[in-house]
Amino acid sequence: MFSKTEYMNRVRRTKEQMAITGIDVLLITNPSNMNYLTGYNAWSFYVHQMVMILIDEEEPRWIGRKQDANSAKETTWLQNKHILFYTDDFIQSPVKHPMEAIARALKKAGKEKARIGVEMENYYFTAKALKELEKGLPDAKFIDSTLMVNYLRMVKSETEIQYIKKAAVIAAKTMQTAIDSIEVGTRENDAVAEIYHAQISGTSTYGGDYPAIVPLLPSGTRTSSPHITWSDRRYEKDDTVIIEIAGCYERYHAPLARTLVLGTPSDEVRDLSEVVLEGLNETLNAIQPGQTCEEVESVWRDSIARNGFYKDSRIGYSVGLSYPPDWGEHTASLRNGDKTILKPNMTFHIIPGIWFDDYGVEISETFRITKTGCEVLTNFPRKLITK
Amino acid sequence: MFSKTEYMNRVRRTKEQMAITGIDVLLITNPSNMNYLTGYNAWSFYVHQMVMILIDEEEPRWIGRKQDANSAKETTWLQNKHILFYTDDFIQSPVKHPMEAIARALKKAGKEKARIGVEMENYYFTAKALKELEKGLPDAKFIDSTLMVNYLRMVKSETEIQYIKKAAVIAAKTMQTAIDSIEVGTRENDAVAEIYHAQISGTSTYGGDYPAIVPLLPSGTRTSSPHITWSDRRYEKDDTVIIEIAGCYERYHAPLARTLVLGTPSDEVRDLSEVVLEGLNETLNAIQPGQTCEEVESVWRDSIARNGFYKDSRIGYSVGLSYPPDWGEHTASLRNGDKTILKPNMTFHIIPGIWFDDYGVEISETFRITKTGCEVLTNFPRKLITK
Repeated sequence: MFSKTEYMNRVRRTKEQMAITGIDVLLITNPSNMNYLTGYNAWSFYVHQMVMILIDEEEPRWIGRKQDANSAKETTWLQNKHILFYTDDFIQSPVKHPMEAIARALKKAGKEKARIGVEMENYYFTAKALKELEKGLPDAKFIDSTLMVNYLRMVKSETEIQYIKKAAVIAAKTMQTAIDSIEVGTRENDAVAEIYHAQISGTSTYGGDYPAIVPLLPSGTRTSSPHITWSDRRYEKDDTVIIEIAGCYERYHAPLARTLVLGTPSDEVRDLSEVVLEGLNETLNAIQPGQTCEEVESVWRDSIARNGFYKDSRIGYSVGLSYPPDWGEHTASLRNGDKTILKPNMTFHIIPGIWFDDYGVEISETFRITKTGCEVLTNFPRKLITK
Repeated sequence: MFSKTEYMNRVRRTKEQMAITGIDVLLITNPSNMNYLTGYNAWSFYVHQMVMILIDEEEPRWIGRKQDANSAKETTWLQNKHILFYTDDFIQSPVKHPMEAIARALKKAGKEKARIGVEMENYYFTAKALKELEKGLPDAKFIDSTLMVNYLRMVKSETEIQYIKKAAVIAAKTMQTAIDSIEVGTRENDAVAEIYHAQISGTSTYGGDYPAIVPLLPSGTRTSSPHITWSDRRYEKDDTVIIEIAGCYERYHAPLARTLVLGTPSDEVRDLSEVVLEGLNETLNAIQPGQTCEEVESVWRDSIARNGFYKDSRIGYSVGLSYPPDWGEHTASLRNGDKTILKPNMTFHIIPGIWFDDYGVEISETFRITKTGCEVLTNFPRKLITK
């Protein structure tokens, strides 16, 4: 929870963007943006809910399911009269849709002809939600405002940086737990149980929150499939395991990946890990505020090209406050074509993995841009790990 | 992983529904439905991906991100030539959208004028995804097919029932762990760490999978907010804790909720729990195949009305195969107005919680419909728990 001043400042900056783009009403359905503006925090994004900002009203409104309005009273800075709800008969009903209730609320507020910003590319704003809003408000104009608030989130406040640092401590502790738990003969799921335990128990002074992505630790030939989840297979001698986890504190993430070999790495894995490490180190050393994201990626690209490698996927992305299914902020990516200019206190997960058909290597860090370069926030030996 | 015969049978039944509704191409973006039809299983639903069924082609196609195509090769029964991908420059890009690539694939297949079914009310099919498809295929007709496959999933095969039973064993073990871990002076997150450990370690013969919802265990006055997540607050004497968890095996869920009091329950909580238990027991005893969902709910409604209570939210829903953010199937709900007829091997989570402004009680079970009544699959003492 941040100070009311910090939340009010975030709302003010959002309204500035609304004014620039001529938006009268902004409907925020991305749970990370809802949290950023109001503090709202509950596992209720599986039903329709939103934060509504009216350009001519000081305080936002929260609207969601009746039983979740209590969570809004508990977790947001909003006055109770700004916490509204729809009834339970709208929940997952084949005949009624919550956006009917939202459209009615907008009519009641005199916004039936408004220019309404919606987050069209957001997991929790379905195609049907837009259709229902359009049906209920035929004279309104709907404008795609998908990343408006996401972009405001990119530069973190000092308090946010402290949260990510706390998450980074959990990430390092969890990575050590993972490496200690993964043994020849151990089941994958038993290692994951220890990983979860470390993520959530956190430290003796603060607890851990749930990361937006489950622990990912493909092993053996499955290291070529970075998003495959665990099984109850037992680890075998000489298995390679790619461990990608995050620490999470109050919804702020610090992701971290390492590659572990249970025995002797193959020549291929050893060579590839050297290429990845060299590229990662060169890239981190070159980062400067004022650069663009694509300039960062080009350092990596040139480095691995010297070693005869080419990788056609992005090598990182803006990270911070998030909810499942993704801990990325969906704004800047470290890739060719991204002209975003780096500023102090932007935070990124740089994850320059290389995957082939039957093996892969990932080594990653979470860093923030400083006034002179970058500060790596995750603190764990940066190398191919063998045991 | 099920037999190829079982998957083919699911595809056949889907095509029957497509034929009935005049759909030439079905684009399945709900990860649970993707898994149901092909076995696909990876944490990759945070980027656009789908299973495409052409009515005139025997085998479905999987289309997603290039690096996830390896997961499709690993987890589905599809031939490699039916596993297609788009390149990484489409990922979370402000200037390109993966549905452009999908539209091109559909044109190439000669489907530019097809009647195309899409899951409009699905977390992973955004408003923008539909707009991009409409833009890329201006002569196609898009039809809402949101629950077509979900409804096919309602009656489970014997193998699916075995999976849910395995999940129920994990649920009971996890509930015991929760009750053992929650103590006066313990931090909430430390109890959750133990809960996660139990969920994922599973049993000595099979491992646990990640449930689609995090452990929910609001305590104290937060018991009025069922979806609020944990903090690092320490439990206090006489706290009420509502514990809602699931066991998960191979993506199949068995949810289970109990209410725990650390000390002496207040008169309010004790009385309310008796009402809930009486209502739950009467309802479970009355369930028969051939009844409608609303008839089940009316038993509960009548039972609590005798005790002077009224609850305006649904008391349960169809459950089974699922991915975050929800373990419900989004088809039948146990509520007034739902005319779905119960059939053997349908599976439900019945969760008749009652919440007031500052307290609440939840006691739930997962059950299947049998030929003569219902079988409760979760096996844990059905009572208000005190310690």
